[in-house]
This record gives sequence, structure tokens and C-alpha cells, in this order.
Amino acid sequence: MNRSNHRPRLYPLVSVDIALFGSDEQGLKVLLARRAREPAVSQWALPGGVLRPLEDAQLVDAARRVLRDKLAVSVPQIEQIRVFSGADRDPRGWSIAVLFAALVPREQVNAVVKTQVQAVEWFSLQELPPMAFDHAEQLSAALTKLRTRVESYVLPLHLMPERFTLTDLQRTCEAILGRTLDKSVFRRRLKGSTDIIELDEYQGGAQRPARFYRAREGFDFTG
Amino acid sequence: MNRSNHRPRLYPLVSVDIALFGSDEQGLKVLLARRAREPAVSQWALPGGVLRPLEDAQLVDAARRVLRDKLAVSVPQIEQIRVFSGADRDPRGWSIAVLFAALVPREQVNAVVKTQVQAVEWFSLQELPPMAFDHAEQLSAALTKLRTRVESYVLPLHLMPERFTLTDLQRTCEAILGRTLDKSVFRRRLKGSTDIIELDEYQGGAQRPARFYRAREGFDFTG
Repeated sequence: MNRSNHRPRLYPLVSVDIALFGSDEQGLKVLLARRAREPAVSQWALPGGVLRPLEDAQLVDAARRVLRDKLAVSVPQIEQIRVFSGADRDPRGWSIAVLFAALVPREQVNAVVKTQVQAVEWFSLQELPPMAFDHAEQLSAALTKLRTRVESYVLPLHLMPERFTLTDLQRTCEAILGRTLDKSVFRRRLKGSTDIIELDEYQGGAQRPARFYRAREGFDFTG
Repeated sequence: MNRSNHRPRLYPLVSVDIALFGSDEQGLKVLLARRAREPAVSQWALPGGVLRPLEDAQLVDAARRVLRDKLAVSVPQIEQIRVFSGADRDPRGWSIAVLFAALVPREQVNAVVKTQVQAVEWFSLQELPPMAFDHAEQLSAALTKLRTRVESYVLPLHLMPERFTLTDLQRTCEAILGRTLDKSVFRRRLKGSTDIIELDEYQGGAQRPARFYRAREGFDFTG
């Protein structure tokens, strides 16, 4: 029996979708899940789930529940991007999808795929598969927000490993923006930032050791 | 008979709220409506209405319907700001309010109050009444977005009359930001803007006439 038949036409289907970004040596990636059931069965989609009003106190709690139960991932911040809605975007009828985005720390990028209960995979942004529903448009909205932040030098520190070099940080910003940045301009803009903390630890040999940095506790990427 | 009793607990109440901004000689204003029915009857609130899935193709169409039917206002652009949700924000139960914002052209600011079918009033931001539900928080979210835009010199041209002087535009930006701007810095930032078009019309006497400008056709405030 199809449960959607029991949804009165006056009440839309409400769900959350999550654009999860991670970064590794190959650049920026997004986590997609292969849908296990109809509609759009076996198509790739942003991970998500239907709102459970008896369980979720707010929409963001539905997103956190999906991250926890379906993906076993924990993220420093989760942010609402925007709402997609309409009679035609989902064959089950009038629907509302609230899109959230989150950055996955470097250490967890591999772990997410291993602990998943759903078939999920990290995709490079250059090699995205066709996606279900309006998820390509959703992903594009989340990416635009991410890029706008990084353009104005809000640093994507939540994507980084616990300690990182400035070169590593620059590469991550470049992967997000899809273009190279001038090293001296980049370093100048970071001068005086209170969001990254210098460590007394170095990467590499005695020749040209690169200093490690870490993110300030409580750093806010979404603010 | 209370219709809300018939809403299954599994489906949230979905509505749209609209932060409508206008500007006049006294500064920036927001339109509030006095609620005609329970809950929160006779309290001031952002104008809004419940989604009608059989009538509204998307959420933004619900917002346009409210603007048209309840307020008889037409705006150049309407923009989704964010979603407010939860079990506790409305006594009718689990609810989702999608907040939209729009700028009302100067010529319409007085007309809106006159043609309304609901008790509505423009309020100065310095003299806001207590508001129903989480509408104070919603207004604050819309204002933050408006201010962020103007801070980065996206011009609030949709608030302006059909032709305006640069002084008038500066005053409007100042009203939004809540602080004065340096005239020469402001003019320098506007130099080369393709969003405002010089007219061969002037305000004032022969002594120091001020040139009129108009907004470029198709100017996009939300992009």
C-alpha cells in the first residue's frame, strides 16, 4: 500500500535534503546517495529524508537525524540554504524540500563512505552523475552560497583537517572557487585573521618547513 | 468547526510570510498587518497566508497571491529569505513559515495602506510594536539580508521613485544601514555602476541643480 495515497492533497510532502561537501587531494567533492526506492529509484540524489513532525523539533533536526541515522556523519555546522517547492518537482505530489548544506572535516571524508547504511559515494564536481528530482539545481544553489562565502574570505575551515598549512588552505579555497589564487594576495588577506591559529608545529624538512595552523574554537562559517 | 483539527499530525501547517519594505522621507519602514483571527488575534504580524496547494504552483506563488489579494501591492521582485519551523512557533501545531521579502517602490508606499483589505500600517523600524509568533525574528532575518546587500553596494533601487537624485539614493541606503555614509565615498562607489542611468533632468533651481537618475530596466536586487 502506497502511503502517499493517504496524504491529503491539501498538505504538501515536506522533506529535507543535504548538500554535504568534503575535500581531499583531488579537490572538492559532494556526497550523493543512490535512491533505494521509488520515485526515482536507483538514481543519484542528495541525501535526505521526509520530515517527521512527531520526532523532529525543527527542520534542522530532521537534517541532523538524516546525517546521524543514514550517514553516521557529524558536522561542525549545518546551514539552511533555501526551499524548493511545487506541484511538479516530485511525482508524489505537491512537495517542499528544504535544502541544508554542511562541510565535512577532512578526517571524516573516507569514514562517511565506509559507515554508511545507504549506497553513498563522494563525487568530484567535475564528474557529477545525472541526479533525481531538482537535486542538480539544489546542489548548484548550495555551491553558489559556498563560493560566495569563500570569495569574501570566509574560510572553509570546517573542510580542513585538524591542522593544516596555508598552502593546503589555499588549495581548498581554489578547489571551491574553481580557479587559482595568487599566493601573496591570499596570504595578505589571511594576515590578521583571528579565525586561524598559528601552531608551533611544522610540516616538511629543515629546508623550507611550512607552519601548521588550526581553526579557532567556535569558528563560524555560516555567520 | 476548527479546520486545524482536521490536519493530520503528520503534516505540518505550511504558510508564507512577507517582509515588505518601503521608504519615505522618514526613513525605512515595514508593513505590518493586524491579525483578524485566532491565533494571536489583533496582534501585529508580517502579512502572510496559508499555502493552498491546489492554487499555488510554488511557495512564491502563495506569496504573490497574498500580495495581490490581501494587499493589492505589486513589487518588482520577491525573494525567499529562509524558513522558520517547529512544533512550538504556532499554537496550531507543527508549522513551517517560509519568509519572503520585497521592496515596495516609493510611489506605492501610501497606496498600499489605502487599498488594503486587512488593517495594515507602515511602521518605522525604530517604533515597531510587539509582533505575533516569531515574526520579530523573521523581520530581523529579512533586515539582515537587506543590509548585507546594501553594505556591498547592491543598490536598493526598487525602493526608489521612478526618478531620483544621488542624495535621495544615499539617504535611502543610510536609512537601511542605520548610519550615515560619506558622500564622496558613496559617489565614488556609484561611478561606473551600470544599474543607474543618468537622465537629462534636474531637480532644484539654477544654482546647484541635482541630476535625476533612474534604475536600469531589469535591474536585479536579489542576484
